[in-house]
Amino acid sequence: MTDSADIFEWPLRVYYEDTDAQGVVYYANYFRFLERARTEWLRSLGVDQRELMAVERRIFVVTKTEAEFLASARFNDELIVTARLDGLSRATFTIGQDIYVKDEARTHCVRSTVVAAYLDADNHRPKRVPPDFFSPS
Amino acid sequence: MTDSADIFEWPLRVYYEDTDAQGVVYYANYFRFLERARTEWLRSLGVDQRELMAVERRIFVVTKTEAEFLASARFNDELIVTARLDGLSRATFTIGQDIYVKDEARTHCVRSTVVAAYLDADNHRPKRVPPDFFSPS
Amino acid sequence: MTDSADIFEWPLRVYYEDTDAQGVVYYANYFRFLERARTEWLRSLGVDQRELMAVERRIFVVTKTEAEFLASARFNDELIVTARLDGLSRATFTIGQDIYVKDEARTHCVRSTVVAAYLDADNHRPKRVPPDFFSPS
Amino acid sequence: MTDSADIFEWPLRVYYEDTDAQGVVYYANYFRFLERARTEWLRSLGVDQRELMAVERRIFVVTKTEAEFLASARFNDELIVTARLDGLSRATFTIGQDIYVKDEARTHCVRSTVVAAYLDADNHRPKRVPPDFFSPS
Repeated sequence: MTDSADIFEWPLRVYYEDTDAQGVVYYANYFRFLERARTEWLRSLGVDQRELMAVERRIFVVTKTEAEFLASARFNDELIVTARLDGLSRATFTIGQDIYVKDEARTHCVRSTVVAAYLDADNHRPKRVPPDFFSPS
Repeated sequence: MTDSADIFEWPLRVYYEDTDAQGVVYYANYFRFLERARTEWLRSLGVDQRELMAVERRIFVVTKTEAEFLASARFNDELIVTARLDGLSRATFTIGQDIYVKDEARTHCVRSTVVAAYLDADNHRPKRVPPDFFSPS
Repeated sequence: MTDSADIFEWPLRVYYEDTDAQGVVYYANYFRFLERARTEWLRSLGVDQRELMAVERRIFVVTKTEAEFLASARFNDELIVTARLDGLSRATFTIGQDIYVKDEARTHCVRSTVVAAYLDADNHRPKRVPPDFFSPS
Repeated sequence: MTDSADIFEWPLRVYYEDTDAQGVVYYANYFRFLERARTEWLRSLGVDQRELMAVERRIFVVTKTEAEFLASARFNDELIVTARLDGLSRATFTIGQDIYVKDEARTHCVRSTVVAAYLDADNHRPKRVPPDFFSPS
């Protein structure tokens, strides 16, 4: 799991909408960036969340998150947001994520951990994560 | 309709989340402010949108909007957002809205018009606006 | 100006952050999409807005906008956002923009016009738009 | 510090802008709610952040946060967001925050901890938190 080949990377650009009057990215917006990368990571594993909800009535819900804000990203910065599987239990999984500025120093902006649950969309009860979910063949 | 007594006013505060790196409120966020005032205006008329959707399967959808940005609001400003009925047809209504800074000059930030449709939540077909909707007894 | 070659197109994906409890993209968020496309369009013309602000103290500010919401975009949709120069005066320019779903029908979601002013970042006074701004050589 | 009299409470309403296509408040938006309460809590202690930045060149920056999402808030819910001082060091302070639905059960939606630093706005170096900051006389 710690093999670098297993770390998913997603690039994105900082627009005015993401910044605030302190001149940097507003802290809550990093959580939006982190979720974009998780969504694209799942897509890269063959998981289409819209179909999953519509057909199988399964959704992912964040149950816990931690984040350290190490450096500020700014308007127009290109960022790299990562995602890697750090742990998997019956109905939840833990994802380690980082955000870097795509500059020469690869400035480390955010270090984060997210715990997500796999739920029945109708009654929000935990469901077993399919065993091959994170093992694309 | 143009009687000042018919103009609904809703106060709100500008937080960091609303601003951008130019130091002022990000333009798209004024549309969020305008909708908050419309929601509270409907509530003041006895319309509970959640119940309307859950029980009667009716929703409001913005179909058209115009806005002029006359002056910038800043972090920590107290704003007044207004709403007044400017027109009503069978399935749509037109709402005039303004945003002012709550200062001595009552600085005029935004002048806007919104056209909203009253729709069936299931098939998104237009439905007749109940005639007493905007006439609280 | 109306030559299709002059229409800039920018693709983007709809994430959960962009949607609301009606199951579609929240109306104010289309204005964020429109600005992303304008920013990328300017970048494609060689305009770096961050440098423009830092070095030349010039900013773009939206002074007026109109939008018609023709169809709803949904979670996971891929969108195309366009931008084209519709008019240019001494200190303002008018941009026509559209948003389509990148599906076979190329569903037309939003038709919009934006008027932007070119301002001095320090005193917000209008400045002359450089004549070669929209004519990349 | 744990005296209930020291727990600040701030009410707010959930609007469409805060929700997502799962029908509940989008997880990153709880962080916006938490910051609104911190801003109002500081205001209640006599701290005007805009003046603090403009005159004394001091800003608050979130350096770390944790949140558990226990239950989902929905469109139209009235929420209570709390803030209390949990710890204070030379240049940082720790704030405990909770979000409840303002219903009979006082449903507990979010439990969170935030560490904020007090910085020089120009060079982002840590500054000593004034000793009487959290002791309104």
